[in-house]
Amino acid sequence: MKASIITIGDELLIGQTIDTNSAWMGAELSKGGFDVYRITSIHDRREDILNALNEAAGKTDVVLITGGLGPTSDDITKQTLCEFFNTHLIINNEVLTMIEEMMVRRNFPMNEKNRQQAEVPESCRVLKNSAGTAPGMWFEKDSTIFISMPGVPHEMKHIMTEIVLPDLKERFTSQTIIHKNIMTYGTFESKLAEILTDFESKLPENIRLAYLPASGIIKLRLTATGSEFNSLSALIAEQVSKLYKIIPEFIYGEDEESLEMAVGKLLSSLNKTVSTAESCTGGEIAHLLTSIAGSSAYYKGSVIAYDNIVKTQLLGVQDYIITKYGAVSENTVREMAVGARNMLKTDFAVATSGIAGPDGGTDEKPVGTVWIAVDSERGTVCEKKVFGNDRLTNIKRFSLASLNLLRKQIINH
Amino acid sequence: MKASIITIGDELLIGQTIDTNSAWMGAELSKGGFDVYRITSIHDRREDILNALNEAAGKTDVVLITGGLGPTSDDITKQTLCEFFNTHLIINNEVLTMIEEMMVRRNFPMNEKNRQQAEVPESCRVLKNSAGTAPGMWFEKDSTIFISMPGVPHEMKHIMTEIVLPDLKERFTSQTIIHKNIMTYGTFESKLAEILTDFESKLPENIRLAYLPASGIIKLRLTATGSEFNSLSALIAEQVSKLYKIIPEFIYGEDEESLEMAVGKLLSSLNKTVSTAESCTGGEIAHLLTSIAGSSAYYKGSVIAYDNIVKTQLLGVQDYIITKYGAVSENTVREMAVGARNMLKTDFAVATSGIAGPDGGTDEKPVGTVWIAVDSERGTVCEKKVFGNDRLTNIKRFSLASLNLLRKQIINH
Repeated sequence: MKASIITIGDELLIGQTIDTNSAWMGAELSKGGFDVYRITSIHDRREDILNALNEAAGKTDVVLITGGLGPTSDDITKQTLCEFFNTHLIINNEVLTMIEEMMVRRNFPMNEKNRQQAEVPESCRVLKNSAGTAPGMWFEKDSTIFISMPGVPHEMKHIMTEIVLPDLKERFTSQTIIHKNIMTYGTFESKLAEILTDFESKLPENIRLAYLPASGIIKLRLTATGSEFNSLSALIAEQVSKLYKIIPEFIYGEDEESLEMAVGKLLSSLNKTVSTAESCTGGEIAHLLTSIAGSSAYYKGSVIAYDNIVKTQLLGVQDYIITKYGAVSENTVREMAVGARNMLKTDFAVATSGIAGPDGGTDEKPVGTVWIAVDSERGTVCEKKVFGNDRLTNIKRFSLASLNLLRKQIINH
Repeated sequence: MKASIITIGDELLIGQTIDTNSAWMGAELSKGGFDVYRITSIHDRREDILNALNEAAGKTDVVLITGGLGPTSDDITKQTLCEFFNTHLIINNEVLTMIEEMMVRRNFPMNEKNRQQAEVPESCRVLKNSAGTAPGMWFEKDSTIFISMPGVPHEMKHIMTEIVLPDLKERFTSQTIIHKNIMTYGTFESKLAEILTDFESKLPENIRLAYLPASGIIKLRLTATGSEFNSLSALIAEQVSKLYKIIPEFIYGEDEESLEMAVGKLLSSLNKTVSTAESCTGGEIAHLLTSIAGSSAYYKGSVIAYDNIVKTQLLGVQDYIITKYGAVSENTVREMAVGARNMLKTDFAVATSGIAGPDGGTDEKPVGTVWIAVDSERGTVCEKKVFGNDRLTNIKRFSLASLNLLRKQIINH
C-alpha cells in the first residue's frame, strides 16, 4: 500500500510556513500501514499542480493533498482538480447551508466569496468540514484515490480523523506497521552503530533499525512490518529487551521522552526535589525542567550566576576558589552546586560553569568546555565535557549533559 | 533561476521529524532571487533518491539536497550520489584530519565509521562542514548544480551560509532583489494590516509587503525587485521611514533582530545592567538574554523563584503579600522585581509571575495570565497580559512580553 502527500501553497516554498501537515499525515498513514514514499510541496500554480497529480496517478494507492482551497484569488486547487478529473464546479447545497449557518453565527454578512466556497467538482465525493468552510474532496482515477483537504491544520485533521482515516482503513485491509523508539544519550551515532553492528545484523527480516540523532540524543527507531499486531508487538519487545542488555548505560527512555521528562518522572516517583545553579547555561536547564507540565512538584528554583559576584555572594562560592582555579573549574562548579542545594533546600542541585562562546576560550579551556556538578546528600559528582564552537548548540548540549548527569545521580540514589 | 529542494530521511515520511530545513532553505533561496518550485521529501532508498535526482536534472538550475549522510547503514545518500554521477568514493584527507581532530578534542577514539565519513565521491567539490563531521558535496550535471548537505539543521545552515549561498550568488548574476525587515511587537497581524492599508496601497509597483508573524512578533518584510541596487535601496529606505512614522510604537528593530538583541544593544550602549526574577517563565527570559554573545557585559544573573518559598526567602517578597493577593498578582511581581534588583545589584530587574498551564487556572486568573514588572531607579512598572492555553507557547509569549516591557523602560530611562 503506497501513499504520497502533496502540499500546495506559495508560503511553503518561500519558507514562510513550515509544512507541519505532511508530518502529521505521514505519521497517521504510516500507523495505518501505508508506505508514504514521497511528500511534495508545490506553488499555487496550475502547471505545478497538474504535474504533481500526473506523477502520482496510477503509481500510488492514495494521494493526500492539502492547501489552495481558500476563498482568495491565489487559491486555484479546486479549479485545477476539475481540469485534471475532467469535471466542473457545481454548488453543493449542503455545504452552502453549512456556510450560511456559520456566517449567521459569527454575525458576518454572506458574500460572493463565501458562496464560491460551496462550489465543488461535480464528480467528487464531498467530505464535510466540521471545523471550517472549505469541504474536502475525494476522487478516484487510474486506481488511485486522491483526497484534497484545506491547508489549515486543524481543519485537515478534523476531516482526516472523522472521515478519511476510517474510510481508508475499511478500504485497505493492510499490513500492520509498528514503530518503537528507544531514547539514548551519552555517545556518538558512529559509536552506537559500532556497538550495535551484531544486533543489527541479527534483526529479523521484517524489522528495520534507524538512528535519529539530535543535539546529542540518539533515537533508535525499530520498525516492524507484518500482518498481525500481537506477534509483531512480541517481536519488537524481544528486540527492545536485547537493546536494554547491550546498551543499558545509554538508554534513558522510550517513545518521544526527553531527558527533562525522564528526570521529572524519576523525581516525582521518588518524591525528591531539584534546583539549579547555572552560569554558562543561563537558565536553559531551568527552562527545560519547567517546560514539563506539573514540574512545580519537584522543581523549586534556580540561581543564574552569570557574574562571578553572584557566584560568591548568592551561592557562597569562596573568592579564592574562583581566583585560584577560575570560574570554569571543578572546584567552582562543586561549590555552586553545594551552595544552591543549601540555599534552595532541595534534594538535588545541578550546577554548570563553562564557555559557550564565541569568545572567552583559551588553549587550556577552549570554547565548548563545561564543568557540571550534581550535589545530593550522597555528595557531589563533577564532570567535564568539551563540545563545539556554536554558542546556542553549546548551551543546549551543556544543558542536556547536565540533565543526564542529574538523571544518573537520581538513579544511583 | 529555478531551484528545487530534496530532503532525504525515513523520519520525514513517517512524521517523526518535521522538515524545517526546507523552509529555511526555501527562504534563503527566495531571498537570493530563486524560484523554489518544488520541495520533495523521500525515504533513504536508492530508487527513490535516483528518481528524485533524475526528475530535477536539466530542469532546474540548483538542487539542494539534505539528509542521509550519517555514518550508519541506513544512510545511503553518498553511495547513491556516486551511482548517479558515475563516480566512486575516495578518502578526503582534509576531512579525515578534521574528523580526527574533533574526536581527539572530545576524547573519543576514532573508529571505522568515523573514517568512512571522510569518504567523498571523487568527482565532487567538497564543502567543508565547520559544525560537524559529514562534509557537503557540490556536483554539476546537465547544467544543473546539485548540492548535498547533512540533515542536521545547524550543520546545513553553516555550510549554506559560509559556502553555498555566497557561491550561488556569485554564479548567478540575476535581477537585484532587496529585502528589508522591520520587526514589530505589541499588536495583532490583522490590526497591523488595517493600520497599514493606505501605506500598502501606495507602495511602488516593484515593492511588496509581507506580514510574517511568529509568537507575537510580526516581521514586516519589504521586497524590492529591479535592476539597480542603489536606486532600489533608496526606494526601500523611503518606505521604511514612512513605516517609522506610521507605527513607531510597534517597531523595535530591523532585519532579523530579536527582542533580546534589541534589549542587549540598548543596555550595552547605555552601560546598564539587568537581572531577572522569574516564576512562570522558569528561566526562559534569562536563557533568551544569555543566548546573545557578549551578554555577560550587561546580564548579571537571575533568581528563578518557582516555589513561593524562594520568592519570600531569596527575593524578600513578604509572606502576607502572597497570602493576600496570590503569587500571580501585581503586588507579588512588584516585590519580586524590587528584590531581584536589590540583591543582584543591577540597573534593571524584570520579574514574572503567571499561570503557564495546563492546570492552575481559575475564573479570575485563567491559564495564560501573567503579571510582569520592571524595576529601575525610576520605580516599578507592572503589566498584566492574558494569552492562550498552551504551556510552551505561554512561556514564550510571557518572556517576549517581559523583554518588550524591559525595552520600553530602558528607552524611557
